[in-house]
Parts: sequence; C-alpha cells; structure tokens
Amino acid sequence: MEKQQEKFSFNLINNDHGGARLGVVHTPHGKIETPVFMPVGTAAAMKAITPEQVERAGASIILSNAYHLAIQPGSELIQKLGGLHKFMGWNKPILTDSGGYQVFSLPGKKVDEDGVTFKVTKNGAVTRLTPEKSMQIQNELGADIIMAFDECVEYPSTHSYAQESLARTLKWARRSIDSHQNSSQALFAISQGALFKDLRVQGIKELIDMDFPGYAIGGLSVGEGLDNMNRILEICTPILPENKPRYLMGIGLPEDILGAVERGIDMMDCVIPTKFARSATLFTNFGKIRVSNKQYKKDKYPVDVNCDCYTCSNFSRAYLHHLFASNEILGAMLTSIHNVRFYLHFMERIRHSIKLNRFDSFKKNFLDRYNKNEKV
Amino acid sequence: MEKQQEKFSFNLINNDHGGARLGVVHTPHGKIETPVFMPVGTAAAMKAITPEQVERAGASIILSNAYHLAIQPGSELIQKLGGLHKFMGWNKPILTDSGGYQVFSLPGKKVDEDGVTFKVTKNGAVTRLTPEKSMQIQNELGADIIMAFDECVEYPSTHSYAQESLARTLKWARRSIDSHQNSSQALFAISQGALFKDLRVQGIKELIDMDFPGYAIGGLSVGEGLDNMNRILEICTPILPENKPRYLMGIGLPEDILGAVERGIDMMDCVIPTKFARSATLFTNFGKIRVSNKQYKKDKYPVDVNCDCYTCSNFSRAYLHHLFASNEILGAMLTSIHNVRFYLHFMERIRHSIKLNRFDSFKKNFLDRYNKNEKV
Repeated sequence: MEKQQEKFSFNLINNDHGGARLGVVHTPHGKIETPVFMPVGTAAAMKAITPEQVERAGASIILSNAYHLAIQPGSELIQKLGGLHKFMGWNKPILTDSGGYQVFSLPGKKVDEDGVTFKVTKNGAVTRLTPEKSMQIQNELGADIIMAFDECVEYPSTHSYAQESLARTLKWARRSIDSHQNSSQALFAISQGALFKDLRVQGIKELIDMDFPGYAIGGLSVGEGLDNMNRILEICTPILPENKPRYLMGIGLPEDILGAVERGIDMMDCVIPTKFARSATLFTNFGKIRVSNKQYKKDKYPVDVNCDCYTCSNFSRAYLHHLFASNEILGAMLTSIHNVRFYLHFMERIRHSIKLNRFDSFKKNFLDRYNKNEKV
Repeated sequence: MEKQQEKFSFNLINNDHGGARLGVVHTPHGKIETPVFMPVGTAAAMKAITPEQVERAGASIILSNAYHLAIQPGSELIQKLGGLHKFMGWNKPILTDSGGYQVFSLPGKKVDEDGVTFKVTKNGAVTRLTPEKSMQIQNELGADIIMAFDECVEYPSTHSYAQESLARTLKWARRSIDSHQNSSQALFAISQGALFKDLRVQGIKELIDMDFPGYAIGGLSVGEGLDNMNRILEICTPILPENKPRYLMGIGLPEDILGAVERGIDMMDCVIPTKFARSATLFTNFGKIRVSNKQYKKDKYPVDVNCDCYTCSNFSRAYLHHLFASNEILGAMLTSIHNVRFYLHFMERIRHSIKLNRFDSFKKNFLDRYNKNEKV
C-alpha cells in the first residue's frame, strides 16, 4: 500500500559569499525551500488559524512540541490514530522539538545526569524526561524532523555551569542517536554552550563527529540580546558543515531573521506571528501596527496594501479594529492569517533576493522602510 | 458605474399541500432559495468562522444587528466605509434586525409611545431607539432586508399588556414605513401579540393593510415552548399573504426548523450552530454530540461521516476533543465550520424534499435517526 518514503536530504543551491544561502530540504512529506520560517503549532494546532489557511499562506513545514503532546493527548494515542500528520490534518513536513526547552523553563525541575524530573503545569503530576523517553515520544509522533534532547541553560549562566551542562547535552545527543528508532525521521543535533565561544566550538565539534543530518543552534533568544546572538551565530555557522541544514531555534522578529539568514541560517521558528496577531499587532512593510489603537477606528485601508492575504484582500483596518473592540474571535483569526502570510511572503522575498545575489540590498531596503514605521 | 440593482421579489415555486413551501427571494445582492436558515453575525461578524468559510458552507444570507452596530462601531461609520456588505467582507444578502428584540431584553429599559430609552450594557450610556432612529441606522448599514421596529413582549404576558404593546408595535410599523429612505432595501413587518390568537390575527390584518414585502413572526422562542410556538404558527401562516416570504425570528434547533417549515415558514435565523460549537456541541444526523466528553478522547471517526465540511473531511473527534482539552481556539473554529455546514446542508435536504413532494417522509426519517442519538 505505502509508497516508499523519500529520505531526508539537503541540497545547497546558492551560497551568497559565505553568508545567506539558498537550499532545499527533502523529507518524506515533501520539500522545504530554505531559508524557511516554520510557524509554530505547539499542541498540534496553530493558534486561531486552520491548517488549510496555513498552507495557503505558503508554509512548507510547521513545528510542534513533544513535551506538550506527551502530556495531552499522549504520543501513544497520536500514533494509534495514524501519527501527528494525520491527527492535525497537515500533510506537509513537521518538526517536533524534543521537550528540552519546555522542561527547562519549568520552575522546580531537577536535572541529573540521566534526565530531568518535573511537575506538569497542567495537573501537577510529577514526571520525567530522558533522551530515550523524548526519542520514544518523537518516534510515536512521527514528525519528519525530530530534535535531540538537550539542556537549555538559563541566561545569564556561569562558564562552569554551562560547561557541565554542555557535557550532559553532548552525552544526551549520543543517547538520542542510540535510542532513535525510525530511520524515516531525521534527528537534528542542538548546539549549546551559552555565550561562551570555547564551549560552542567544542560542542559543535563533538556533535559533528556524531554525524547528524542537521544542526540546530539552541540556548539563544533567552534574553541575551541581538548583539550576543549574532556573535554566537558568527562563531557557530562557519564551523558547521556546509552540506547540512542549520536551524536557529525560537527566532524571531523580521530583523532577527534577516540577521540570522545573513549569517548562514537555513531554518527558523517562532510563535511571534500568531502571538502578536492575538494582541492585534500586525506586521507590515512599514513596520508593526497595533490595529486596536484608536487611530485605526475609521481607517479604510487594508493592513498592508502590498499583501495578498485573505484579510488584506477583503477587510479594512477599521473592521479589524471593530472586531477587537467587540471581542470577536474573528479578529484574532483574520490578524493571524495576515501575520503568517506576512512572514512566509517575507521568506519568499528573502529567498528570491539570495537567488539574485541581492540579499544585502534587499535587507537594507526592507529595514529602511520597516524601521520608518510610517503607520500608513 | 453601478449597474442597476435588482429589486426585492419573492417567487413561490412549490406549495406542498398548504404546508412546507419552496421559493426564491431575489435581492440586490443575489437570490436566496427558501426555506432558508440565516446564520447570525450579530456584530457584523460570525463567531469563530470567516465569511469565506460561511459562504463555502452554503449560506445565501446572513443576519446582523442594528442595535449592536449602532453602538459599536456606529452605523454612520459603516456607511462611510461603503456599507455593511463591504465592511464585513460579505457580498451576498444581509438582513438586519431592528434592535427591538435586543433593547427589550435589557434590564431597566423604559417604553413610551414614541420609543424606548435604555442603558447600553457596554458602557452604561443612556440612549434611545425609536422607529425613525432604527430605520436611519438600518438605512445607513444598507442590508438587503431590514426589519420594522417593534416591541417584543416578555413571556408570560397578560392579554391587556400584550394588547397595549401590539397597538404600539402597529403604530411603529407605520412609522417605520414612513421613515424608511432606501428603496433598494426591503422592509419586513413583525407580527406580535404574544400567545393570544385574537391579537395575532388583528395585528397581522393591520400589517397586511400596510403592504410589506415580507412578514416576520416575532415574540416567539422566548420560553413559551414548542407546542405554544407551533399553535401560534398555525394561527399566523394561514392568514399571511401566500406571495410574500414569512420569517420566523430566532429559530432554532433542527426539530424546531422542521416544525416551522411544515407550517409554511420560509426564513429562520439562530445563533445555535455557532454558539453550540463553542461549547463543543456538534450536530450530526444521529443527534447532538459533545465532543469534549471523555468518550471521544480516542475516537478516530469524523464528527459525522456523511458531512462534506472541512472539519469532517480532515479531522477526527479525538483531535477536536484534544483541541478543547488544550483550550485551542482552533477547536471552536473547526466545530463552527461543521455546525454551520450541518445546518445549511440540512436546509438543502429540506428544500430537495419539498421539491419532490416528500417533505413529510424526510421529516419523519430525519427525526427517527436524529432522536435515536446513537452517538456513533
């Protein structure tokens, strides 16, 4: 019955002078043109937008979370129901995070060499996650790309704690490989080491020796600021294998994305487009606007005249303002459609500019206009 | 620039032995096959479903509310922005209610011969609605069908109060005609008279003398029960003009709709499909199911295997259960898509059965299955 699944691979198409790069990731559920932004559907659901609308916005891959799904509804149930793709009605690639980041953000978690013990926020139940358990969950979910179980160190951290933690993360990376049971899922490594150059370099070297099909940079976007993030990227990307995709986790705003792409990042994810949408903040080529502000009450223009989304094609800012003033769910739905489309169209324009070897001028022109924040 | 707008008209196609009837209402924004169910978008927005999804579900007309829109964002602003159709991104027919029902449900309203004074729930502002004001608001909104300003009497009411109120409603009906300024909008009358036969008969006769293009039956579905409602319908519909559409306001559940259609009603509206959806209650051919109940946690089947909606085509009951367990907005979105489609498909089947002179057997078969509530 089943046709043979396409294996995971990455083709680097264009490397713009060692900086921004164009590529294609192939997965069992289709190809992903990079640099790519992955919208986040943490609990196997994007917030306030249907999978059909996400696909129409141009998404080629979305992200979901092993930790959340293990707790509700359970990864075993999802497997029984045919896997995560079928469960959430999304037939394109999916990446699941390992749960590392989520667990380490919980208060009162206890880390030991073998794994982490924590209380589930939802119901207070004490539970435990190890590399083996995370791999089992992610194997059951069946995403195309899965992540090694890592420890995400808080910012700021001392060199000695970051070093101790990195050693653990590297051992857990090996255990993730050893316990990963499904060869149709690509297991990515996660670089840690906080803001310390020696640790980042040492960690990446050891991960490269383990030969992962892709490498993520974790432990950033935790409060360190853009300069620190870019400094770490400039340490990491030059020593990562050129022929493997590079994923910067949890990034970000349009300006962050431009900085990451410039430094050779291929994949990114963030909750920002849908999260901002729910608080009425919309992205435009002229900066962000908060459509619930009084100034938009009578504004007859669409959010962004250059946008081809359903919202911009059919509704005024005045209507969106009215929906938020009336607490209508439709407000969050229409703003989410716009923000997701804005991000994915933005990535299309980035890829096009790299193809033409014009990424630098695209970046400059975009930021000039975006930072003016003319609020047209 | 503008092409000449089609005027309002009603063609009666098939009158199934004096009971259920098939027709077509023509309006400036397109035709409406009757019997029709009108989904409700009170504040110029359907709840948790986009206009595109409502259209795809098969809606030919939706209902909005003059009272709510006069308060937020204001009917004058909507007129300035191009009218209600453009404002809410819905290019098919719209009916606006006059505000009568909403005002009379407010605590502390004061009725006099000229109109009603009340406090706006949202901000406590004291304001006033009269037939002239309601017509002005509805003219500014620009719906295809608008409603006379009436007094909706509470249940239960005395004969003397219902009589006094009816006299007022009849005067207000005349004043609604006299102040209505837009000939491309069809103004419907509203029958009142509570549960009193003499008042209903007298009122309808006077309204017929005023020659409205359509007649609504108001003051029902206020707690009087199905038997009382059907009794009043059996008084009203035989004396209403055969060549004018008949609109039963605020109805209802599938079983109520069947009873109304059987008694010669052409148009109905209700918030039930979207309201029930938001509390996880779904309509199926085998009765209602509450998908948040534990029994659906592992249920791999769609809500209704016979439904062609996006939700039933792509998602299991287990997934919907998970969305409600996770408080995901997508839960209400997907259940709203299903319930609206269920209602509109139900109306398609009713019209088809009338066409074939088989309404009675359709009704019996539907209710047999629906009332079994097999919860498959």
